[in-house]
Amino acid sequence: MRYFKLTLSYDGTEYAGFQWQENARTIQAELEQALETIVGQPVRVRASGRTDAGVHALGQVVGFGGPTQLPPETLVRALNANLPRDIIVLAVAEVPADFHAIRAARRKRYRYVIQDGRLPDVFCRRFAWQIPRNLDLAAMQQAAAVLVGRHDFSSFESSGSPRVSSIRTIYELLVERRPGDHLDRIFIEIEADGFLYNMVRNIVGTLVEIGLGRTLPTAMAEILAAKDRTAAGQTAPAHGLFLLWVETNP
Amino acid sequence: MRYFKLTLSYDGTEYAGFQWQENARTIQAELEQALETIVGQPVRVRASGRTDAGVHALGQVVGFGGPTQLPPETLVRALNANLPRDIIVLAVAEVPADFHAIRAARRKRYRYVIQDGRLPDVFCRRFAWQIPRNLDLAAMQQAAAVLVGRHDFSSFESSGSPRVSSIRTIYELLVERRPGDHLDRIFIEIEADGFLYNMVRNIVGTLVEIGLGRTLPTAMAEILAAKDRTAAGQTAPAHGLFLLWVETNP
Repeated sequence: MRYFKLTLSYDGTEYAGFQWQENARTIQAELEQALETIVGQPVRVRASGRTDAGVHALGQVVGFGGPTQLPPETLVRALNANLPRDIIVLAVAEVPADFHAIRAARRKRYRYVIQDGRLPDVFCRRFAWQIPRNLDLAAMQQAAAVLVGRHDFSSFESSGSPRVSSIRTIYELLVERRPGDHLDRIFIEIEADGFLYNMVRNIVGTLVEIGLGRTLPTAMAEILAAKDRTAAGQTAPAHGLFLLWVETNP
Repeated sequence: MRYFKLTLSYDGTEYAGFQWQENARTIQAELEQALETIVGQPVRVRASGRTDAGVHALGQVVGFGGPTQLPPETLVRALNANLPRDIIVLAVAEVPADFHAIRAARRKRYRYVIQDGRLPDVFCRRFAWQIPRNLDLAAMQQAAAVLVGRHDFSSFESSGSPRVSSIRTIYELLVERRPGDHLDRIFIEIEADGFLYNMVRNIVGTLVEIGLGRTLPTAMAEILAAKDRTAAGQTAPAHGLFLLWVETNP
């Protein structure tokens, strides 16, 4: 028996999320099926963080064990030959038997993409929240700054998957347009030691309320302090969200 | 009766091409249906160049006439409200009654996107030809330079839609990687006074043969001089091709 850490990217559009579900297409089911084909027996994988239906990943990290003699590089090729084209394994590394993808995760970074031009771009529609009104970037940046640091993020935690504690540390929260980008996009990137359920999408939904001028940027401190989900804005749609990477130990 | 020039963008993935076909989803059919809803009677549109199944457009130009009182800006909004999300009208301008989208086209520019990294990016798969081997950019550029200017491009004309003459002028043919692009993409852009059937895709297919080292870059002059389709390379797949813009008069 050997153990592996697998880094993968996927277009979440056609999936009901990462986690296995009866009668639904999921990333986990596709991955386990490909691994079973290669390893010759059922394999169970564990993601460092489950992504919801429609959410994408550039660098999801998954752990699994199996009785294979294949070197990691060969596993990469064999997996990609057996996976659908919207899932790709980027890397495989051997890890100790006690590797646990969730517990090993130290830090994660998500990106959320908004396109706020008057005319939405057809090529971005699966990968950005398209809002046909110009957002006030400076107001969003001002509000975002309030969230950086160690806080109780209960106001941004959706019910349905409660964590033991709602305290997390956001190391960075960027809200930016990128020079040379002709697509009127706003990129929001959040790096933290962990995320509550729907935390990124709830923060983004609140920032968009502020960008639209419906909420003042100065209200963000009160929203955070309320520790109450109803104080914050709507949950941003899944298809603008990307899990960028997961830092694990090892 | 008033006449309009319409500029539109579409993701061609789910369409059997621009041109109307029985029992197939086409851009023309969607556009004519939206126009009929708005104008209240059947409308026939004419594209400055038909795009094939799977080909995309950033700035296709289409002409039509109809008995409408709506100002162009209102037509843009009304059309977008009635079109599927993978087609978007960018602009509408009123033109003289004798405007003919094909005859008015003076110049066109196409882009072809190749992704030649070892691992294909899942988010590019609908919009780039993914080739899992590194292409020799310098060889492709050397060969491409031979095609610039006024030539008989019969070697790059697929049968099935013959033009009166196979002579065209290529004003520019760029083959480049872009600084800061982390996706291992090669962009090929071709600007000409007109294009033969499949001309861009046949040129790209030939350049890829050269980029793979299967054909020498110095062979391009002979391929062009042969005036024979069998001298050139394969036809590149449709999904990497974008009609960028059409310059019309007016």
